[in-house]
Amino acid sequence: MTATAAKATTVGFADVLRARDRLAGVAVRTPFIENAELNNRAGGRVLVKAENLQRTGSFKIRGAYNLMSQLDANAVAAGVVAWSSGNHAQGVALAGKLLGIPTRIVMPADAPAAKREATLRLGGEIVPYDRYTEDREAIARDLAAASAAAIVPSYDHPEIIAGQGTVGLEMAEQAAEIGVVPDRALICCGGGGLTAGSALALRQRFSDLQIHTVEPEGYDDTARSLASGRRESADVSRVSICDALLSPMPGELTWPILKNEVESGLVVSEDEVRAAMRFAFRELKMVLEPGGAVALAALLAAKLDFAGSATLVLLSGGNVDPALFAAIQAEPN
Amino acid sequence: MTATAAKATTVGFADVLRARDRLAGVAVRTPFIENAELNNRAGGRVLVKAENLQRTGSFKIRGAYNLMSQLDANAVAAGVVAWSSGNHAQGVALAGKLLGIPTRIVMPADAPAAKREATLRLGGEIVPYDRYTEDREAIARDLAAASAAAIVPSYDHPEIIAGQGTVGLEMAEQAAEIGVVPDRALICCGGGGLTAGSALALRQRFSDLQIHTVEPEGYDDTARSLASGRRESADVSRVSICDALLSPMPGELTWPILKNEVESGLVVSEDEVRAAMRFAFRELKMVLEPGGAVALAALLAAKLDFAGSATLVLLSGGNVDPALFAAIQAEPN
Repeated sequence: MTATAAKATTVGFADVLRARDRLAGVAVRTPFIENAELNNRAGGRVLVKAENLQRTGSFKIRGAYNLMSQLDANAVAAGVVAWSSGNHAQGVALAGKLLGIPTRIVMPADAPAAKREATLRLGGEIVPYDRYTEDREAIARDLAAASAAAIVPSYDHPEIIAGQGTVGLEMAEQAAEIGVVPDRALICCGGGGLTAGSALALRQRFSDLQIHTVEPEGYDDTARSLASGRRESADVSRVSICDALLSPMPGELTWPILKNEVESGLVVSEDEVRAAMRFAFRELKMVLEPGGAVALAALLAAKLDFAGSATLVLLSGGNVDPALFAAIQAEPN
Repeated sequence: MTATAAKATTVGFADVLRARDRLAGVAVRTPFIENAELNNRAGGRVLVKAENLQRTGSFKIRGAYNLMSQLDANAVAAGVVAWSSGNHAQGVALAGKLLGIPTRIVMPADAPAAKREATLRLGGEIVPYDRYTEDREAIARDLAAASAAAIVPSYDHPEIIAGQGTVGLEMAEQAAEIGVVPDRALICCGGGGLTAGSALALRQRFSDLQIHTVEPEGYDDTARSLASGRRESADVSRVSICDALLSPMPGELTWPILKNEVESGLVVSEDEVRAAMRFAFRELKMVLEPGGAVALAALLAAKLDFAGSATLVLLSGGNVDPALFAAIQAEPN
């Protein structure tokens, strides 16, 4: 416990500020949007952070570039290896393209085609694996060891956490710019890099903010960990449309931060996610992927009482195959 | 010619500034987005104004509210009548809801279902007509005369032009905020209210800006008018997916402004519009309706040489039926 806490203190607000400097001109300061219909639905004020409009269609470029831009010349030459269902893959591939670093990404064979194709277009090399029978981390570590390549983890690294934390930093600034003191923040959660980093940045400005993670049914390891007080795991063989959020458990580095900063974990059903994707299409005019829609789903499904308060909702990604998107839009509301 | 020009001077930059004051807290300052892939495609810098993220899913609330908020008590009691394929309808209905003014909208029987339903949800009353055999303006004028209701025209009114001009005002400010002096602006054009108002506002700050209207094939009346120097008309019986842009000719009030301010009119094919909607889904993660995508289509189809320059692209709306959207996304690129 003491050892873990000590390790966690290797990431702090100052790291998020440094990450923001590195990301200048690389990541976009994504819009912070208020929508009247969403306010009506919540009975309060809702501010949406649209990271689906980020480069590569998700926030992942932030952490990947922040880490990869600090690699030394040897590591740059050897390239990097990562594992990802597709959003981190695109972030790593784009960072590699911008920095001249070869990238190899271990990706499930059933990852969305849109994510595979976008990763390839960005120059990433894909190493497919079977999500249900193979261990992606072992494959990646073997690849890295054989070529002296660096690993770019998808969440459990101080510079990844700090990079993703720039989302929270922007949200804090954008809320302050319009004079809003948010009561709550809803942040989608896989391994917890985005939530941990963003929590560090949000807490710096808003000491009373209640931060909630949001996870899809079956992958509620963070919610259960927060309830029990120790890291719980998810059954990763379970099928879910939220491909971006299928992490086995909170990270070693992310967990102590989550434990300190997060009020509780919310869980949404697949139907609630699909309804949120329809709401985003119809009212927000934005494309969300399932994993990117969970925080909005928690709000629309009234997982807490949002009336009379101000809530930040993080939309994390929009990389979804057209056929799945169309099928979801065709469903009745 | 002199008479027309004199009439046009009843709308100026000061009216746009006044409209902006009236719209505070009503219209959203929509995002101004730069996308790396779009820059790559243009070979220059592209700044996108996302009015599809405006309340009601298009810019139309701006003009409707600006006009309707100035009606006197008698007019408020009698209500208003408008005609629209659906975006102006929603703008008028929302303005009516916010101002307590009953609204009736003459709408084509074949208007998109999403637009009809949204208008009804906002409390608007729909009066259907046959777009191919009936005269919507005559129907609206009869309705208005019978009830002493005011007409809220969709473009040819100084306060509508001034209201829509707040889009251009925001674009000018947002460009200035990031230090960009745009070379060109691409603005979708039906009757010309949005282009005329926005041109007044953009010109105020950027004297050398080249402004281009963009229209769909078959409804290129503005392009032909600009070429011939006098108002030309379109054959409104022609079928087009760009339901928001099917105006018969430039307006009496909008035309002198367009003639003064617009460099030339660009025209895009339906295939180019559909490709732009796919690009918006895949790369921008935004939902565009066909009429809202024509300016983006002109850029992507390289209707001018955009290399090495900075271009403003106005996305005007995102109100599209899910089935049409899905069919377009399913097409090969």
